[in-house]
Amino acid sequence: MHYHESRLRARYAETDQMGVVYYANYFVWMEVGRVEYCKSAGFRYKDMEAEDDILMVVVEAHCRYVSPARYDDEIIVKTYVEKATVRMIQFGYDLREANSNRLLATGYTKHIFCGRDLKPMRLPPKYQAYFAALKALD
Amino acid sequence: MHYHESRLRARYAETDQMGVVYYANYFVWMEVGRVEYCKSAGFRYKDMEAEDDILMVVVEAHCRYVSPARYDDEIIVKTYVEKATVRMIQFGYDLREANSNRLLATGYTKHIFCGRDLKPMRLPPKYQAYFAALKALD
Amino acid sequence: MHYHESRLRARYAETDQMGVVYYANYFVWMEVGRVEYCKSAGFRYKDMEAEDDILMVVVEAHCRYVSPARYDDEIIVKTYVEKATVRMIQFGYDLREANSNRLLATGYTKHIFCGRDLKPMRLPPKYQAYFAALKALD
Amino acid sequence: MHYHESRLRARYAETDQMGVVYYANYFVWMEVGRVEYCKSAGFRYKDMEAEDDILMVVVEAHCRYVSPARYDDEIIVKTYVEKATVRMIQFGYDLREANSNRLLATGYTKHIFCGRDLKPMRLPPKYQAYFAALKALD
Repeated sequence: MHYHESRLRARYAETDQMGVVYYANYFVWMEVGRVEYCKSAGFRYKDMEAEDDILMVVVEAHCRYVSPARYDDEIIVKTYVEKATVRMIQFGYDLREANSNRLLATGYTKHIFCGRDLKPMRLPPKYQAYFAALKALD
Repeated sequence: MHYHESRLRARYAETDQMGVVYYANYFVWMEVGRVEYCKSAGFRYKDMEAEDDILMVVVEAHCRYVSPARYDDEIIVKTYVEKATVRMIQFGYDLREANSNRLLATGYTKHIFCGRDLKPMRLPPKYQAYFAALKALD
Repeated sequence: MHYHESRLRARYAETDQMGVVYYANYFVWMEVGRVEYCKSAGFRYKDMEAEDDILMVVVEAHCRYVSPARYDDEIIVKTYVEKATVRMIQFGYDLREANSNRLLATGYTKHIFCGRDLKPMRLPPKYQAYFAALKALD
Repeated sequence: MHYHESRLRARYAETDQMGVVYYANYFVWMEVGRVEYCKSAGFRYKDMEAEDDILMVVVEAHCRYVSPARYDDEIIVKTYVEKATVRMIQFGYDLREANSNRLLATGYTKHIFCGRDLKPMRLPPKYQAYFAALKALD
């Protein structure tokens, strides 16, 4: 399966008083992962929005927390496509602490393609090609 | 079923360039909901941490996004307990826009009780009583 | 001097591993303060953006931290206008812990009025009237 | 003058509905800058906290916003020490968009050294040496 690995470092801002990374921030890290995944697939999500008025609107998000991430940990976000049609795409994620390869969390986010008006739309062929290319790598 | 309703207002900081509230922030709102739920149950989560060294560590989080929340919307977070044992508690949430009563999202978070060392523990009887009292209200 | 007091509660998400509220979040609280200030002046910032295409773009922000805010503290954000012309407005803020009235921080944010294109503009007379009315209350 | 350059990419989560990066997030980026600055000086801030119980508590923060940062921009945070004594340290920052070298913002943060109890303390000689070494590079 094709996947992309992003690296980032847990910020102080992302911790909470429990001394670990606050749970909502894992979803921000997943965003970092899928943006880079798109780049690895040949396009920038930024351009998809700005030039083609296609938004990937989140309709579902899930995370299972296995082991806490801590401040200054280097994090590897492994992103892959779990499902994709012309109307939706579901990304899967594994988050690991880089040094130890310890699993921190797994999760997924499901998105529908929408226009600027946030109405659902079919993904134009141009972008289908990008995702199709990835499948060929599977 | 016993539940608690919290009210908050969507902040500018919580929006993103799509013009709606960024998806990870719904999990912050769920936190607001469960903290107030605990208060309505007779104890402060803050004290549970500070005085009794019991942490509610998130092990799973899920959100289904139905309709976008927008800047300055008044949000009602309805929180209830879906499941509870001496080792874990699962909160459920409905998020609505207050004026229209439009459903924005539903979700849940699952937590285990841990000590300061983040090791799982059984919830002491004192706190079991709080949750039991709530059940009696079901 | 006219001012507005907003109340909010420090969220777990807003703390960091130092056990206090992360410093950048005070600027989010200032935003809550100035939005409510505008409402107290008779208009919603939301409408100013959506209906009149006027944005208040931050050009400067400052905070002096006096005493740490902690999780679940009730915070009073006192907001007032320090300076205002047809081109800019500067808000001042005092942040206090509600129970003790302990001063947490003071700060200011300076904004210019801009159109959707983020180009500076003069504030239209309609909105000047709102701010003028406030001055009359001084 | 010794300085350190950090690179990061503006996240979707960091934008707001104005279509630019929300102003409070520049302070998070400054944090990224000063953490890396410390590493370039030979120590990890994380260890200073965890092993030596020394916290750098923010007492003042300032930012002047020159030009908006946008989603997916690569940002260079240039960090340097403006002032340092055994009791406080003030970092200065220049933030630029990497491709164009366009100045986004300048700012500073002032910190005092504190123990775990958040009481001010003198910086131990071990850490003075780190900062002194940097000065020798000026």
